[in-house]
Amino acid sequence: MRKKTHLSPSEAILSGQNADVYLLHARRILESEGINPRVTIEVFPSRDGILCGMEESKQLLQAVLPAGSEAWAIPEGDSMEEREVALRISAPYQSFCIHETAILGTLAQESGWATAARASVSAAEGVPVIHFGARHVHPDVSARLEYAAVVGGCTGCATPAGAALTGIAPSGTIPHALILCIGDTVEAIRAFDRHLDPEIKRIALVDTFKDEAEESLRVARALGKRLWAVRLDTPTERGRVTPELVREVRARLDQAGFAHVRIVVSGGIDPARIALFRNRSAPVDAFGVGSAISSAPPIDFTADIKEIEGRPIAKRGRIPGITPNPNLQRIL
Amino acid sequence: MRKKTHLSPSEAILSGQNADVYLLHARRILESEGINPRVTIEVFPSRDGILCGMEESKQLLQAVLPAGSEAWAIPEGDSMEEREVALRISAPYQSFCIHETAILGTLAQESGWATAARASVSAAEGVPVIHFGARHVHPDVSARLEYAAVVGGCTGCATPAGAALTGIAPSGTIPHALILCIGDTVEAIRAFDRHLDPEIKRIALVDTFKDEAEESLRVARALGKRLWAVRLDTPTERGRVTPELVREVRARLDQAGFAHVRIVVSGGIDPARIALFRNRSAPVDAFGVGSAISSAPPIDFTADIKEIEGRPIAKRGRIPGITPNPNLQRIL
Amino acid sequence: MRKKTHLSPSEAILSGQNADVYLLHARRILESEGINPRVTIEVFPSRDGILCGMEESKQLLQAVLPAGSEAWAIPEGDSMEEREVALRISAPYQSFCIHETAILGTLAQESGWATAARASVSAAEGVPVIHFGARHVHPDVSARLEYAAVVGGCTGCATPAGAALTGIAPSGTIPHALILCIGDTVEAIRAFDRHLDPEIKRIALVDTFKDEAEESLRVARALGKRLWAVRLDTPTERGRVTPELVREVRARLDQAGFAHVRIVVSGGIDPARIALFRNRSAPVDAFGVGSAISSAPPIDFTADIKEIEGRPIAKRGRIPGITPNPNLQRIL
Amino acid sequence: MRKKTHLSPSEAILSGQNADVYLLHARRILESEGINPRVTIEVFPSRDGILCGMEESKQLLQAVLPAGSEAWAIPEGDSMEEREVALRISAPYQSFCIHETAILGTLAQESGWATAARASVSAAEGVPVIHFGARHVHPDVSARLEYAAVVGGCTGCATPAGAALTGIAPSGTIPHALILCIGDTVEAIRAFDRHLDPEIKRIALVDTFKDEAEESLRVARALGKRLWAVRLDTPTERGRVTPELVREVRARLDQAGFAHVRIVVSGGIDPARIALFRNRSAPVDAFGVGSAISSAPPIDFTADIKEIEGRPIAKRGRIPGITPNPNLQRIL
Amino acid sequence: MRKKTHLSPSEAILSGQNADVYLLHARRILESEGINPRVTIEVFPSRDGILCGMEESKQLLQAVLPAGSEAWAIPEGDSMEEREVALRISAPYQSFCIHETAILGTLAQESGWATAARASVSAAEGVPVIHFGARHVHPDVSARLEYAAVVGGCTGCATPAGAALTGIAPSGTIPHALILCIGDTVEAIRAFDRHLDPEIKRIALVDTFKDEAEESLRVARALGKRLWAVRLDTPTERGRVTPELVREVRARLDQAGFAHVRIVVSGGIDPARIALFRNRSAPVDAFGVGSAISSAPPIDFTADIKEIEGRPIAKRGRIPGITPNPNLQRIL
Amino acid sequence: MRKKTHLSPSEAILSGQNADVYLLHARRILESEGINPRVTIEVFPSRDGILCGMEESKQLLQAVLPAGSEAWAIPEGDSMEEREVALRISAPYQSFCIHETAILGTLAQESGWATAARASVSAAEGVPVIHFGARHVHPDVSARLEYAAVVGGCTGCATPAGAALTGIAPSGTIPHALILCIGDTVEAIRAFDRHLDPEIKRIALVDTFKDEAEESLRVARALGKRLWAVRLDTPTERGRVTPELVREVRARLDQAGFAHVRIVVSGGIDPARIALFRNRSAPVDAFGVGSAISSAPPIDFTADIKEIEGRPIAKRGRIPGITPNPNLQRIL
Repeated sequence: MRKKTHLSPSEAILSGQNADVYLLHARRILESEGINPRVTIEVFPSRDGILCGMEESKQLLQAVLPAGSEAWAIPEGDSMEEREVALRISAPYQSFCIHETAILGTLAQESGWATAARASVSAAEGVPVIHFGARHVHPDVSARLEYAAVVGGCTGCATPAGAALTGIAPSGTIPHALILCIGDTVEAIRAFDRHLDPEIKRIALVDTFKDEAEESLRVARALGKRLWAVRLDTPTERGRVTPELVREVRARLDQAGFAHVRIVVSGGIDPARIALFRNRSAPVDAFGVGSAISSAPPIDFTADIKEIEGRPIAKRGRIPGITPNPNLQRIL
Repeated sequence: MRKKTHLSPSEAILSGQNADVYLLHARRILESEGINPRVTIEVFPSRDGILCGMEESKQLLQAVLPAGSEAWAIPEGDSMEEREVALRISAPYQSFCIHETAILGTLAQESGWATAARASVSAAEGVPVIHFGARHVHPDVSARLEYAAVVGGCTGCATPAGAALTGIAPSGTIPHALILCIGDTVEAIRAFDRHLDPEIKRIALVDTFKDEAEESLRVARALGKRLWAVRLDTPTERGRVTPELVREVRARLDQAGFAHVRIVVSGGIDPARIALFRNRSAPVDAFGVGSAISSAPPIDFTADIKEIEGRPIAKRGRIPGITPNPNLQRIL
Repeated sequence: MRKKTHLSPSEAILSGQNADVYLLHARRILESEGINPRVTIEVFPSRDGILCGMEESKQLLQAVLPAGSEAWAIPEGDSMEEREVALRISAPYQSFCIHETAILGTLAQESGWATAARASVSAAEGVPVIHFGARHVHPDVSARLEYAAVVGGCTGCATPAGAALTGIAPSGTIPHALILCIGDTVEAIRAFDRHLDPEIKRIALVDTFKDEAEESLRVARALGKRLWAVRLDTPTERGRVTPELVREVRARLDQAGFAHVRIVVSGGIDPARIALFRNRSAPVDAFGVGSAISSAPPIDFTADIKEIEGRPIAKRGRIPGITPNPNLQRIL
Repeated sequence: MRKKTHLSPSEAILSGQNADVYLLHARRILESEGINPRVTIEVFPSRDGILCGMEESKQLLQAVLPAGSEAWAIPEGDSMEEREVALRISAPYQSFCIHETAILGTLAQESGWATAARASVSAAEGVPVIHFGARHVHPDVSARLEYAAVVGGCTGCATPAGAALTGIAPSGTIPHALILCIGDTVEAIRAFDRHLDPEIKRIALVDTFKDEAEESLRVARALGKRLWAVRLDTPTERGRVTPELVREVRARLDQAGFAHVRIVVSGGIDPARIALFRNRSAPVDAFGVGSAISSAPPIDFTADIKEIEGRPIAKRGRIPGITPNPNLQRIL
Repeated sequence: MRKKTHLSPSEAILSGQNADVYLLHARRILESEGINPRVTIEVFPSRDGILCGMEESKQLLQAVLPAGSEAWAIPEGDSMEEREVALRISAPYQSFCIHETAILGTLAQESGWATAARASVSAAEGVPVIHFGARHVHPDVSARLEYAAVVGGCTGCATPAGAALTGIAPSGTIPHALILCIGDTVEAIRAFDRHLDPEIKRIALVDTFKDEAEESLRVARALGKRLWAVRLDTPTERGRVTPELVREVRARLDQAGFAHVRIVVSGGIDPARIALFRNRSAPVDAFGVGSAISSAPPIDFTADIKEIEGRPIAKRGRIPGITPNPNLQRIL
Repeated sequence: MRKKTHLSPSEAILSGQNADVYLLHARRILESEGINPRVTIEVFPSRDGILCGMEESKQLLQAVLPAGSEAWAIPEGDSMEEREVALRISAPYQSFCIHETAILGTLAQESGWATAARASVSAAEGVPVIHFGARHVHPDVSARLEYAAVVGGCTGCATPAGAALTGIAPSGTIPHALILCIGDTVEAIRAFDRHLDPEIKRIALVDTFKDEAEESLRVARALGKRLWAVRLDTPTERGRVTPELVREVRARLDQAGFAHVRIVVSGGIDPARIALFRNRSAPVDAFGVGSAISSAPPIDFTADIKEIEGRPIAKRGRIPGITPNPNLQRIL
């Protein structure tokens, strides 16, 4: 599905500029002292979730570990349990010591997002979920967010960079701003229809100037069969989209002969709201989810030395020696 | 304080690869239709917080807006209220249309982090707070996290890249891994003392093999006046650091003549735990905070067109026309 | 303010047909036994509230008590406390024995309504509250509900019978049904303007077919200075009226030169929602309240014999003899 | 069971004096404009419950609808669900426009009461429930309350007017006041026994002067086989009736040879208290319920136009056209 | 106030039979090894409370400590805070090692009771509280419970042994059993009056056969001025004593000329119920409290070595050396 | 199992010095009046639990009841339900009247403790529970507490007197104080091993000076096969014992070849904490429980006369006559 080359480590990561400085200290001390044991490190999450970021971590390890090193991991996108070993590395410590920060951070943030995506996807019970949250995170990391959302089960994302990473086409309608500039929703959707590639689905945003039910009928009449969907995005100030609104728009479209026009719902959608729409039998054809995925807190990971030169060891509070986990697969 | 050049926009951002595709659609339609009005857009947050990311947003706007454009903003690091206008741009719409995603995302994630940092800093009532959370976010964005933590009031951060962005030296002790490799805490801190620049503060991590109180006295005896601090980081499995432990270590250090040795506390520290230490009079000299800052959800921002060619306008749900805000300063 | 003649007792009440049958039994036994002592009865409420129904109770007592009887009461519309004596009657027991049910019922239900009305009126802090709840109670008692709402502080009510009882003109706009029959809100408000007495205020209901903000501007343009108000009554299916909607409609009306058009808000309004509108500075000119008043439970009242022929007496659980209350006034 | 003639509409209802004035406005405008379409209106409740008031509504419709009109309804006393269509009318709109307030109010208040009655009846699991709540509502509506309580499942009510409406004999003991006037419970029940029709059940109220258990034995000894029941009505000041008291009185009556004497319990009885008595195996023979029924809030009903001259239509927020409901029966 | 000889240690305590066996082990080991340092031990409670048991502990220490030993303590009956040093002993460790269990146990249980007694006494705001709880604890320790209740502020207790320990006369009425054996409350109180010492207060228990208000008047008429009080002890099955019952009995006694008869209330009395009586202005002359004191959990105490031969020392988790406390007084 | 002679009544109990004085009054009045009916008394608890103290009560009754008396009881250690008759006595009332306080108190306190012990034992699901709570109660009653804990299911107790009452050997390690006096945990356990009877199990307390895991390995190396167990008793100041600590100590002991060394856990252990250890699979070999048993409130018992000379009788609130209970066994 995804082009893994996009996940190769940047120079900043390889150089250790993004590493915690105490790891840089540790490497310098070990070099000075001439100590470089083969250690086995285990990495585990602080809570249950969907593992994401392992592909990227693997590419980093491939770039830095010397021959003879070994690594095992849970596959990208699989479930993991609290404190389950998700990654085990056995290699000379100086070779990867400084990359602990990058590996833990990649796994933490991407797993947090993928886990949240999965929650919305599960709640939707088969109705497609499209991820729209790039606007809530820094642009340097937004493509990773989109990648994690798709690993978590979303069927669409919204930025070209995210789409490139996941190998799918980006999804999108037109912004309220375009409608405001053109001055009318019907004129705006007609301009969309005139100028954009026919492959791009015509989805009309119908809450800019008028009531959603009224505007839905207007755009359906204007584009006819070419209209793929209307998108309901009622703002909080107007009470957000309700299940009853979806039912009414569906009924009015059907009564007017536009049964082919789909309904996409967005605006503060999260698993609880998705469940509400499902429970009240609102005929939603796709959900657009943003903050519920992009706001997900990272799932913190911890890395522990469990063996040094084959001897079990651990810091106080941890059990020395390897923790067997049949879910691990050899990756290196 | 900070070197702003580090905050200049990347090529990926300027090219729109990280933009929501519907903004790219909108620009293409407007170009095709020959529509490019001067619009005034207002950007506001969804909840109270500390504004961060405005410097970076300003550099992006400087790079893309044509002459004659104007912009106003709340200054970096200031408080902002829910729905208060934080940024106002007045410019030809085609010139910055596609950069909305990047600006909103930068403000959202950095303000989320800065706001969380401020909560810990406030709880600490003057005791320094050092940020340690890089390991919980993707390395491509960790320096921004450190920058935001410092904008929120932290006095230290942990990565060279983050430190470069904020103009301060990175803080760090030594990892448990080094102590495990060397085999004894005292030997490890002695190796640190031998090989690292004397400017780097000697802070000993004292929970790897032995009880913290016992180990604190051992490292203090080993380094004497050169020991700057001990760091208590007791793992959850051992009940985390308690206020009583801090009081006891302080008392035992003082009784043994090591009143100069400071105590740094880390491990699951957040505003509630900081308040607990303060309320129980635990003599903490610095708090190390990670997840409580790095896990902070973004503060979502929204951008609304409020004027087109000088005429008040707004989509349904928003009030047409400019919303006056005396806290705005002209930035462009 | 009110025409008391409307409150005189019906024949059904005087005949005892609505009395609890055990009181009819008691009167027959006392007549058969020739027992008719002068008793003093005290009537008190089960919770704090606004007293209502006392005028009507007084007219009933005037109709049945023989010369030489006495009665004292708290005035209509005053506050009363839980278990405070609200009415004291001293008279031959056979003369009023069977009317206990009617008196208690009148006080209970009207006080319940008046107390609820007061809660909305207090929350509104001076903004007028109009009562619309007749449709939630049986028509035989709806005029009493309207009377009680006005005693509780409402400045308007909606039925001719209720208005007659309180001496004010009934308030009302036009129903959604009229707009549906005519087919357009603007045409409907124009027909209203053509055919109804100019003394009746022109208030347009603006949520039937279109978005409220759009429709408000349309009716304002149609009637100009003759439009007294718009009424926002957004249904639950569209998220009810929000404070932000009121602010937006106000702003759009003002920007279009219709600062004279008032905004009336209705639909699920209760004290908590009124407080929300007040706290968020929504410029509401009047609230329409229905269920929050009409659903109020009765405040149950109890009647106790406290003296017989001047001797203190009471059933088990009550203290014999009169309970002094300086708030009582002689009414008979 | 019930004599329907009692439910025919009063002149005040027919004249529209109790109607919301905006309906009177609408009729005048439609008359002036010469508009009188055949409309189909659907009436539905805001929450689940027992439907009551439909008989009365039907008699009103029969009195006002012209030939050719049609109506369907859920039968009196059946369950209904939130938003289920309970009544559908198809008729020229001017003919019944002004009666909407009366129909909605009748259904709302009577259904509220019947629903509350059903809750107590269900909790009692076959033990009879007698309604005593007339004293908590206005006498003009108390017979309707008693009617609704019986529709909801009560087997007895307390006023002659209510009993007439439901076709059963009114239930009642003697009031505390009679016992106080006569001076002793035993003397009072003897007087009752002397003077009242033998058909009326002898039920002694046993908490006026003495402990209930002691007094129960005294009245049982006085009336012997003629005593039908004792009624326990302990006031709040003495801790109300407890399940243990019922068990003790039952045991003491049985031990003294009065196994035929029933026990009626009253005083603050509601479904939760009934369940408590049932769960603790208190041998109650009948419950007297007042406020738990009379305080029930109305179940608000809404009337919506769904067709005009055969065309589906609806206001914003509702789905145009008829909502099928197999529970409806043709009533007109 | 109290005869301290009653508090001297038993032979079983002195012999160590009640000591934790590990203390007996420790003494044997120290004797075998010839180790007997002078240690300083500090004893502190686990929560705030009233200190009780210190007199008894002092007598034990006097019996076992050799000349030259020292001890300091907070005085019996004073307040103490969580973890405040309540007792400090400085003596050769072998001399008192095995008595730690007895001292901690005495302080724990008696302080628990005294603290609970103080809570009821404080709630009573000057109204006397009499302790009745001997029946809830083992008879071997009931006198200590009574002693602790008096130290906590109770003005009376119920057993001769408890009274002897506190130097006051025992309080008591007559049991329900006596009334049942004699067959009538009035006859029972008359027998009491005939046979018992006139110094013993005549208090009648008035809930055995009849309603409390009725029985109160009967016993008052029987004994006249010699009746000191009635005691209300309504069982749970009759709803317990309510504030309203006290007010009614007071009113009925006063109206009948028995203003001199006091009212004692018992039955499930605890600080919350006392506050309820006070808040509702119930004229209670004394409260009888049982379980609320006798059920109080012990306040666990801990003993820590803080110095050995003058050197500060402590186990892990405690701060070495003496903790100054100005509330301590030299007791040995 | 137990030597019943230890449970025979003391002279203080037989003399009535510990009796409630009102019972002494009652006996004097009955003697003076010459009244001594044969009564049947039933004794029942206020809540569910494990009955304890019946053996001791039986010995008291054997000592005081005259020939011809009878008694029935639930057996020691059996479950009992709220208000279930646990003891029935049929005898001349004067013979046992004054011993009611002692019997109720013995049953109340011992049943309270036995019930709490059972809760911990049940939570432990077969893992032995040793009782350590003597230090929380007065030494005069501590052996009874230990007896009750064993009746409740504990397999060990800590004082010689308690052990004598239950026929088992007392359990114990060495106190922190001994380790502090000797100066090192290993030296202290060696001294224990040198001087104490080899029958006494060697259990090392491992939290005095060092981390528990480190110290466990040190004492295991010192005593080898003779070490029976380590006891983890981490203080609150160090976060108490956690399930993870137990798992880690187990793993480190096993890895070092000390699989025979058991782990005893103590310190704030109660049923909830026991369940936590069980749920997290912590390999605990025995739990030491103190306060969770010794702090248990008494289960109050009540004694009611139900027959006098064969006639059913009862005070108000109770049902006259015997309450059948098949769980009763004849004990006298």
